[in-house]
Amino acid sequence: MSDKPVSDHRASDISRRRLIGTAGAAGAAGLVLGATGGATVYAAAGPGAAPDGKALTSVGSTAVPFHGAHQAGITTPLQARGHLVAFDLAPGAGRKEAAALLRRWSEAARRMTAGRPPADAGGDTGVALDAGPSSLTVTFGFGRTFFGRTGLDARRPAALDPLPDFSSDHLDPRRSDGDLWVQIGADDALVAFHALRAIQKEAGEAARVRWQMNGFNRSPGATAHPMTTRNLMGQIDGTGNPKPSESDFDRRVFVPADGGAEGPEWMAGGSYAVVRRIRMLLDDWEKLARGDQEKVIGRRKSDGAPLTGGTETTELDLDKAGPDGKPVIPANAHARISAPEQNGGAAMLRRPFSYHDGIGADGTPDAGLLFICWQADPLRGFVPVQRKLDRGDALSPFVRHEASGLFAVPGGARDGEYVGQRLLEG
Amino acid sequence: MSDKPVSDHRASDISRRRLIGTAGAAGAAGLVLGATGGATVYAAAGPGAAPDGKALTSVGSTAVPFHGAHQAGITTPLQARGHLVAFDLAPGAGRKEAAALLRRWSEAARRMTAGRPPADAGGDTGVALDAGPSSLTVTFGFGRTFFGRTGLDARRPAALDPLPDFSSDHLDPRRSDGDLWVQIGADDALVAFHALRAIQKEAGEAARVRWQMNGFNRSPGATAHPMTTRNLMGQIDGTGNPKPSESDFDRRVFVPADGGAEGPEWMAGGSYAVVRRIRMLLDDWEKLARGDQEKVIGRRKSDGAPLTGGTETTELDLDKAGPDGKPVIPANAHARISAPEQNGGAAMLRRPFSYHDGIGADGTPDAGLLFICWQADPLRGFVPVQRKLDRGDALSPFVRHEASGLFAVPGGARDGEYVGQRLLEG
Repeated sequence: MSDKPVSDHRASDISRRRLIGTAGAAGAAGLVLGATGGATVYAAAGPGAAPDGKALTSVGSTAVPFHGAHQAGITTPLQARGHLVAFDLAPGAGRKEAAALLRRWSEAARRMTAGRPPADAGGDTGVALDAGPSSLTVTFGFGRTFFGRTGLDARRPAALDPLPDFSSDHLDPRRSDGDLWVQIGADDALVAFHALRAIQKEAGEAARVRWQMNGFNRSPGATAHPMTTRNLMGQIDGTGNPKPSESDFDRRVFVPADGGAEGPEWMAGGSYAVVRRIRMLLDDWEKLARGDQEKVIGRRKSDGAPLTGGTETTELDLDKAGPDGKPVIPANAHARISAPEQNGGAAMLRRPFSYHDGIGADGTPDAGLLFICWQADPLRGFVPVQRKLDRGDALSPFVRHEASGLFAVPGGARDGEYVGQRLLEG
Repeated sequence: MSDKPVSDHRASDISRRRLIGTAGAAGAAGLVLGATGGATVYAAAGPGAAPDGKALTSVGSTAVPFHGAHQAGITTPLQARGHLVAFDLAPGAGRKEAAALLRRWSEAARRMTAGRPPADAGGDTGVALDAGPSSLTVTFGFGRTFFGRTGLDARRPAALDPLPDFSSDHLDPRRSDGDLWVQIGADDALVAFHALRAIQKEAGEAARVRWQMNGFNRSPGATAHPMTTRNLMGQIDGTGNPKPSESDFDRRVFVPADGGAEGPEWMAGGSYAVVRRIRMLLDDWEKLARGDQEKVIGRRKSDGAPLTGGTETTELDLDKAGPDGKPVIPANAHARISAPEQNGGAAMLRRPFSYHDGIGADGTPDAGLLFICWQADPLRGFVPVQRKLDRGDALSPFVRHEASGLFAVPGGARDGEYVGQRLLEG
C-alpha cells in the first residue's frame, strides 16, 4: 500500500448519523475534529485497492486520527465491529519490555488507523487490503496488575482499586481483568480483525492473550435515526449518556490535564474504562409482553421515551403517578435506578458493543452486551450506579454479569510519543 | 412499524460494488431484479424510526425480494453479517408439523425481508426497529434426515446422498447436518440477529436448534473495489466463481425448471448447498512469508491475479514454467487444483461468510470460513473438487474442515406459496 492521500470523509453524512448515545451531531464531530485539527488522512490505495484511482466510499475512507489529547475510541461514534483483548505480561517481562511493547503497539495503531499496514517490514496478513481505515480505532489501557509486574506500584492510580463485589455477579476470572487491555473498533469486520491480529503479533514474546471478545453495533447507514443504538433486548441504549455539548462532559469522562484529584499526572487526558460482559437471558426476556418489558426499563421500546411521556431525550418524571396512585415509572425500573439524579449525579459515558457467541453450554443464546463505560473516576461513575442496580433493578433477573475489568486508559499520544510513555518513562 | 413505502435502493451505488466473487455489476443486479420485477419495497418507518420522515440511507433501505424463481441469498450480493442455523424436527413432529413450520417461517421471512415485524401479533423483540430491511435474506433448506422423519423418503433427491469421507476431515457431528437449515444474511448485525431470533421463535414446538454459527463479510462501502471479498487469510476469495453473465450460470447453480436430471420436480429452481465450517490455522499461516503464501494459493495476495500474470480475472496459465523449469503455478497450488478445467468443468458458486469465535480451546484463533457453495448437483460441483483438494492441496496443512452439511434448497416461493410447499403438499 502506498501513502497516497485520499479525501477525509470523517464528518461524512453517514458518520454524522452514528453518534454515541444522544450526543448531538455537531457536538460529537466537533469533539473528534477538535482533538486533531486538520491532520492529513491517508487511506489504502495500493495495488489491491481501487485500481482506477477511484476514491473509496465514505465508510471505508473515514479515518479517526490516532494522535490527540485523548485516545480515540472513547468519544468516537460507535463502530459496527469491535474486539476486546486483554494481555498479561509474559513471565520475566518488566517495565522495559512493556515500554517497547507500547511503542510497537502505538506505531502499529498509528499506521493502521490511517489505512496503512502495521509495519514497513513485510508480514502483514493483508486482511485489510482494498479497504480504507474504516474508522478504525485502537485504544490501550492498563489493569491493576500491570503496575506490580513493572515495578510501578507507586504510580498506580487509586482509581484502579478493585471494584466492589456485587451480589448479582457471576464473574469468570479467566475472562476478567488483565495487565493490558486493547479495544479495537472499526466499521468493517475485516479491518477490525486485521488490527486484532496485528496487535497480537506485535505482542511477540512480551505479552500473552488472557481473554478476547468480539462485538458489534449497527452498520453505517442501516438507520437514519440520529440518536439510537439498540441492544439485543431491543432497547435503545445510551440515552442517559453525558453529551459532549454539556459543559461538564470533559470533567465527567476525562482526567483533567493536570491530573487533578482523579488520578496521577500521567493519566492527564485519560479515562477509566469499566468493562463488563453482561449476558442477556433472552429466552426469559422475550417471554415478557412488550408492556411488561417497558415497565422493567421505564421507557417505551419503540422510541426510548420515558413512560411519563415525551421523546427519548425528555427527562424522566419520577414523581408522576398513574390512575392507580402508583408511580408511572415503577420504583424498580432500570431507568429510574440508574438515573444520575438518583445517584448523586454519578455519570459515565457508555459505549458498548453487543455480542453474540452462538449458543451457550446451557442451550440458551450466549449473547448480550460488552458494556464499556468511561469516566474520570469509577467511584463517581460505574460503582455507585451498579451498587444501586445490584440492590433493586427490575432488569436484574434478565441479565448476568459474567466478566469484569477495570483499566486506566491514558491520554492520547502526542506526535512522536507512544501511549503510556508518560507512565513508563516519566 | 407501519408499512410506509420508501424508495428502493436495491441497485444503489454501494450495493453495486458488492458482488459475489467476480460477477459483473450489471449481471448480478440484473439477476436479482429480474427475479422480481418492480415489487414495491417497504421499510421500517415506525415511531422509532426517522421521526422526521427522512428516508433511510441506502444500506438500510435496500430490500431483497422474498418471492422469485429462486430463493434469495444465493445470488444476492454478499452481506456483512450472516447466521447459519440448523434444526431437527422435534420428536413426534412429522410432515404436517413441518408444513406448518415452513408456512410460518416463509411468512416471517417475507415480512422481515420487507422491513416489517415477523408477525402481526405482538411479541416482536424490537431489535430491528429503526433500521430498514438492510438486504436481509432468509433461505431455507432440507437435510437428508428430513425426509425420513416426514415420511417423504420417496421424494428425497439422490443429490442428498451423504458426501464422501475426505481424509482431511475433522468433522464434529454435533455441528454438522440437520433436518432443516436456515441461512440468514443482512448488511446490519442487529437486523440479522432479529431475524435469527424470530426464526427460532417460530420454530415453536416443531423443531429444535441443532447448531448455529455466525459469520461476516465486508461492510457496504468499506471498499470501492468492485470484485473483491477477502477471507481471514487475506486472500481474495471467489475469483473462480461462475458469473451470472455466463450462459451456463443457471445450469451450474440451479436445478432446471422441469427438475431435469438433477433432482425431483419439487426442486425446480432450487439449488444444493454444501456448508463447511473451515477453520483456518492462522498462527501457522501467518508465519509463512507472503511469497510462500502466494505459492500455496497460486495467486498474488495483493490483487488475486495468477502468479502467471494479468489481473484477478485473467485465466491461470497452468503450463507456464519459470526460469528453473518448474511451473510458475506449483503443481499443488490451491488455485490449480480447484480450477474448473482441472475438474472436468466442475463449478460451484461459492458464497461464504468469514467466522471468528474468539480463541479456541487450543489457544489458537477459532476463525476461518463458513464455506457455502451452491450448485445444481453436488456431484458436479463440490465433490469432485474437494476430492482433488483432499489429495494434494498445498493449502491443506493450513485449514481444517470441522463441520459439514448438505441441504436441498428448493426454488423460491411464488406469491401466496411457502418455501417447500411443492415438496410438502405436492
